[in-house]
Parts: sequence; C-alpha cells; structure tokens
Amino acid sequence: MTHENLTAVFEQVRKTAPLVHCITNYVTVNDAANVLLACGASPVMADDAAEAAEITALCSATYINIGTLNARTVESMRTAGKKAVELRHPVVLDPVGAGASVLRTETVRCLMDSVAFTVIKGNMSEIKTIAHGSGTTRGVDASVSDAVTDENLAESAAFVRDLAVRTAGVIAVTGAIDIVSDGTKTYACRNGHPMLASITGSGCMLGALVAAFCGTGAGCAVDAAAAAVCAMGLCGEQAYRKTVSAGGGTGSFRSYLLDAVSLLTPDAFAEGIKIESC
Amino acid sequence: MTHENLTAVFEQVRKTAPLVHCITNYVTVNDAANVLLACGASPVMADDAAEAAEITALCSATYINIGTLNARTVESMRTAGKKAVELRHPVVLDPVGAGASVLRTETVRCLMDSVAFTVIKGNMSEIKTIAHGSGTTRGVDASVSDAVTDENLAESAAFVRDLAVRTAGVIAVTGAIDIVSDGTKTYACRNGHPMLASITGSGCMLGALVAAFCGTGAGCAVDAAAAAVCAMGLCGEQAYRKTVSAGGGTGSFRSYLLDAVSLLTPDAFAEGIKIESC
Amino acid sequence: MTHENLTAVFEQVRKTAPLVHCITNYVTVNDAANVLLACGASPVMADDAAEAAEITALCSATYINIGTLNARTVESMRTAGKKAVELRHPVVLDPVGAGASVLRTETVRCLMDSVAFTVIKGNMSEIKTIAHGSGTTRGVDASVSDAVTDENLAESAAFVRDLAVRTAGVIAVTGAIDIVSDGTKTYACRNGHPMLASITGSGCMLGALVAAFCGTGAGCAVDAAAAAVCAMGLCGEQAYRKTVSAGGGTGSFRSYLLDAVSLLTPDAFAEGIKIESC
Repeated sequence: MTHENLTAVFEQVRKTAPLVHCITNYVTVNDAANVLLACGASPVMADDAAEAAEITALCSATYINIGTLNARTVESMRTAGKKAVELRHPVVLDPVGAGASVLRTETVRCLMDSVAFTVIKGNMSEIKTIAHGSGTTRGVDASVSDAVTDENLAESAAFVRDLAVRTAGVIAVTGAIDIVSDGTKTYACRNGHPMLASITGSGCMLGALVAAFCGTGAGCAVDAAAAAVCAMGLCGEQAYRKTVSAGGGTGSFRSYLLDAVSLLTPDAFAEGIKIESC
Repeated sequence: MTHENLTAVFEQVRKTAPLVHCITNYVTVNDAANVLLACGASPVMADDAAEAAEITALCSATYINIGTLNARTVESMRTAGKKAVELRHPVVLDPVGAGASVLRTETVRCLMDSVAFTVIKGNMSEIKTIAHGSGTTRGVDASVSDAVTDENLAESAAFVRDLAVRTAGVIAVTGAIDIVSDGTKTYACRNGHPMLASITGSGCMLGALVAAFCGTGAGCAVDAAAAAVCAMGLCGEQAYRKTVSAGGGTGSFRSYLLDAVSLLTPDAFAEGIKIESC
Repeated sequence: MTHENLTAVFEQVRKTAPLVHCITNYVTVNDAANVLLACGASPVMADDAAEAAEITALCSATYINIGTLNARTVESMRTAGKKAVELRHPVVLDPVGAGASVLRTETVRCLMDSVAFTVIKGNMSEIKTIAHGSGTTRGVDASVSDAVTDENLAESAAFVRDLAVRTAGVIAVTGAIDIVSDGTKTYACRNGHPMLASITGSGCMLGALVAAFCGTGAGCAVDAAAAAVCAMGLCGEQAYRKTVSAGGGTGSFRSYLLDAVSLLTPDAFAEGIKIESC
C-alpha cells in the first residue's frame, strides 16, 4: 500500500509554505518554530488577545498548545480559535497535561466549547481526559496503563474513532503505536522511536507539524494529521540512528531530529512510513 | 578597503564584555542569550517594569524586540528604553512583525515616540512599515517584493539613508544585501546565506549582537551595527559550509552558527567581511 | 575516598524517575526540561497560581528560579513552595540575579520568609546577597571579587556553613570550586570547566538537577545537592573535551553537555567526581 495521499500532503508543505499561528508554551516554543521552518512552513507566535485574531487571519493554520497556560493566553487561544473557525482555517489543539490539573482539564473543556477543532492531538491520557472529563496524566506524560499495544489496538482504535465522531474532528493519539481517526478513516502508525520521549518538545513539534500539514489545504484533515504523525516518527527513527552512530546522547538527538525534518524528501517519506488502516 | 574601523569594534566586544539588557520574545530568547555569550558579551533578561530601569542602568546596552509583545512587557520596554536614553546608553529596536498587526505597528510607533533609538534593525517590510506607517510584512518575514537587489540597491540605500536622517539614528535593513546607514555613512553588506532564514532566531541574534557591538563604546553606532551585520552574515556562511560537509540540516546549522560566532577571530572577521560604502 | 553515598543518589535518579515541578525563567526553561529528561527525571512546567499547588502535589520535587520573575509568577512560586513544604517535598531556590535589582533581592527575601527551602543554589554574589541583604551581582554573574579560590576556601566554606545553619537548609555555591553545606557536612567540589559559563543555562540546569536528585528521596539533601553539582561539573568537563576534539564552539558544547548528562553512568560518575569534605 503506497499511501500516495499522505505523500501528496507532505509534498505540499514545501510547495505552499503555510504560515502557522502558534499560541504555545514557552518551554518548547523554539522547537516548534524550528520544526515548522524545517518542514518548509513558517511560524508566527503571537499570544496577545489584542492581535490574536488578526494574526490568525494572516495565517493558513492555527496551533494551540496549553503547555504553560495562564488566564491571559487562554483568552488569546479562544480568540484565535474562533477566528480560525470563522475563516474555515484548520485549528489544532494540543491539550498538554489535560488531566494533570483542574485548570488544564477545565481549559480544554472551555476551548472545545468555543472552538470546533480540526484536529486534537495528545497522548492517550490526555485524550481519555477529553473523552471522560477526568484522567490520570502523569504530569505531561501518559500513564503507562494507557499505552496502545497490539493487544488493545482494535479497542483503542474504536475509542479514538468514537471520540472523533463525537467531536466532529480528527483525533490523533500518540504513543508507541499512533492512532489517527476522523470517525470514518482510521490509521495506525508504527513509526517513531522511544528516544523521542527523551527530549522535551517532540510532542509539541508534532502538534505544530499537524497544523502546518493541515494548512496546505491538500487532502483531508485526517490524511494531513496522519502524514505529520508519520513524518515525525520517521524523523525520530533517522535521528536515533544518527545519534547512535555518532556516539551521541539526547543533545545530539535533538539537533539530528531537526536535521531529519529539514532533509526529508517525498521519496524517503513514501518509503519510510509505516501506516495501516484499522 | 580594509574596514579597520569595523574590525576595531569587533575586537572590543571580547575586550569589554558588555552587559546587554534584553527585553525580547520568548521564542528565541535562548538564542539571543547564547549568541551574546558566544561573541564575548553577557546577557541579562529582565522584562518586568519593576526592575527594567535598574537593570538597564547596570548594563552597557539595551536590546528591545517586540516578537511576542504584550501590554506588560511593552511598558517595560518603554521604561528600559527611556532609562537607556537618559544614561546615553545605546538602545536597539527590533520591530519584529511591524506591519503584520495593528498592535505591532502601533507599539513601534509609541516606542519610537518615547525613545530615541540608537539603531533600528529589521527586514525591509518592517522598516517600510516604520517609514510609511503601514506595511506588507508576511507574519515575521519580509514580503518578496521588498527584497533588496543589485537593481534597486541605490534606491533602497537612499530610502534607508533618508529614514536614518528622519529618525536621527542608525537604520539597519537585513536581507540578501543588508543596508546600514546613519544618514551620513551608508554601507551595503553582502555576507550571509539563505540558510539563516531556515532557523528561527537569526534575526533576533543579530539584533542582540548589534546592541553588544554598540555597547562596547568603540566606534560610532553605524560602524558597530555594520560590524554586527557582517559578523552574523559571515558566521552564517561558515555554518552553512560546515553543515553541508557534515551532511546536516537545520538543527546542525543552528549549533554551527553559535560555534562560528564563538570561534570568530578578528583576523577571520577582517578577511571575511564583504562590505562597501554606498 | 569513594563517596558511595553520592553515587547512590545518582543511581536513584534513573530508577525513580522523579517528576520535577519547575517554575523557572523563559530564557533557559528548555535547557532545564532537557537536562531533567537527560538525567532520567521528568519535568513539568506550570507557572500559573491556579494550578501551581496541584502540580506541586503531583511531583516529587519543586524547582523555583527567579531568572525572569514578575508579579504573576512570584505568586505561583510562593504557592508552589508552600505546598511543597506542607507535603515535605524538597524545594530548591535558584536566586538568579539576587543583588542585581531591588526586585530580585526583595523577592528572594519574601520567598525565604514563606518557604523553608531544602536547598538554595547560587553563585557567590547571589548567596552573599542572601546572607547580607545586598550584594554586587554583575547582572546574573558573580563578581570577580567573589570567586572561591584555594586561598579563601576555608573562609568561604565557613561562610557557607554558617548560612546553612541560619537557613536550616542546604546552601550550594557554584564557582571554580563549588561549596555545598547543610551546616554539618560541607563539601568542596572541583569538577567543572570554565566553558560552562560560555553558554546560558548551565546554572539553571544544575538547579533543576539538584531538585531531581533531592526528589529521589535517596540520601540527605546535602548529598543529593553535592551529587548534582559533581554530575554537572563532570559533564561540563566531558563536553569540553568533545567540543575541542570536534573543533566546535559554544553551540556544539551545549549539545555535548546534554549528551554527557544523558550518557553518564554510575561508574563514570563515581570515577570522575572530585569532591572532598572541608
């Protein structure tokens, strides 16, 4: 199976160079900006309510990440999200740490009440929090008990598919096996490497890529999200191999990951992705 | 032409180790701090109005960058800028994204009303916004139509020179050809490499360097700004060559760029800069 | 002398993977997160008062760094610190720039009035400011006159020991020779390399490591803090050697430093640390 639709989205990122408005946390914001540039998109970070809607209107996609939320920026997230929906621009939510505090869980609920997100991308603990209203997120990491495995893949995919139907958007769950669904089409992706969890920002970088890939306007949102998930995982594999052969650790891995994103070609993407419908 | 005056400024950075107060965006603030240390200066980031003036007074130069502005930090920028002027310390403005939102365009106007900036450094779209009150900035990038080329160099230089006269400060416009003018002396610099635009922060790093170079007190501000522009461009060229020979991408380029700044010697600077009066 | 107690703490970091709540500056927050992951711990950054106590309660240790303080985040620091003390979790203060502005000096005083810190880690100028109520911090760097040398080591150690008694906590002073004391046990550590001062964030990374090491619950706080100080210094030495052999500068050093932390084994730690009681 060649998944030409995903490769077609991937190719469009460099061709269309989408501007992506990011309201994201200050821990990994630099990584998000650099990964957008690396994939051929352009970042704009503007988190003040006084300009959030105007910047959203300039851009092709919006990325909202609650990693270091506060009252001021949540207001801007809502403003940007609403404007994106009004303009029919894709808008991606990264509910970092939903389930770890009442503030995070409530903020996600409020944002989802105001904004029909195109894609919601999180780990299984965050996504279960969204589905059930509470969760067991360990800080910003998924609980071990929430891991997607071959044993629970069918059940996990059904859960993700159902939530996609309920939210009328795409749900992308990251983990050893990633699941992406819009309620109709559901993908399982097996790219990636555990070393991605050994640096901060790999999840946020993926969220930004999802927004960029959706911002190309090529393909449907579920294909765009799945293409981004595969691209990030594949680049993680490549960065891991380069790190090992250089005798490096997590600092080198971080640089090689950006290298891999910036050097990834459509052919290598098509060749390297490990994705199946489920 | 040897441009000994520029090399003299460059040499003074390591000799005087100027402290630079930065009120800058949270996307690239780490890059700004690291490039200041790499060139031999020291950064202090303090963006609260309650200490802005006091920190400015401790430092030799102030760098103000509106990349992720909000009401709280704009107040601190104004306070720091006024104190710098009062103490006759150089103060550099980086009007990131001026022209992309009303908030940015208005903030730049207000800051310029309160503070006589020693240097204003931006891309052509940002600088045109300052000159004309509105612009066509694409997010935080210059419009393609605003590129400085050999064909429009004389006209572009005249524009920059005129604005320098009007603002009674130095204007530094970055692009494929950089133009730096104080209204009397005007330089065109041809150092640099397109890969500098493939990472976030190269513009902000340059802004911080301009402040550090001005903070040495060596030479006039136009020479200090031109020396910083040349240094950054030259380091971009070196980092590009190292990246290609290592088979790296943008992650490696980012590390090599800091490497180049930290390793640049006065001799290599004098040898490598490509600058002409115009 | 083998210092098995320090190695025992070091080993526990990877075994217990402590969650560390960080309220820290936006300049080096990414470095703090990455160094925590590199050593085997996990970071959570949450700086809003609405969730600070809840996140603190989830975690095993709290790290408070005033590098880019403002009224909003200082409130969260106080809330988090009090909760940590209430739960008997270790809480580490990094008084960045204390002595450089009234705001910083006063904030440290207020935080210390509200929170019994387990460890206070700073350079000698910051620590003298805490001891005497005012200081001569040069921005965020120590004054040259405050350097710990072999000549003043006994006197410096006595000062640190006395302050530890007064604060009823551990005081860790960093410099060419580091001194760590809880008032009873006092260590001098000679690991480290001057290149650590050529990048931003090495001090903040150490502060985060101190919190992580304390968060293992292994050993007493003075041993945990001393183990972190040794680990960071040793990794700085290794990163320096790798940088030189690769012909790199400060950008490469920064990556290699994270590499070293992520690759450091208990045997290499036990072998490489240079620590003595004093």
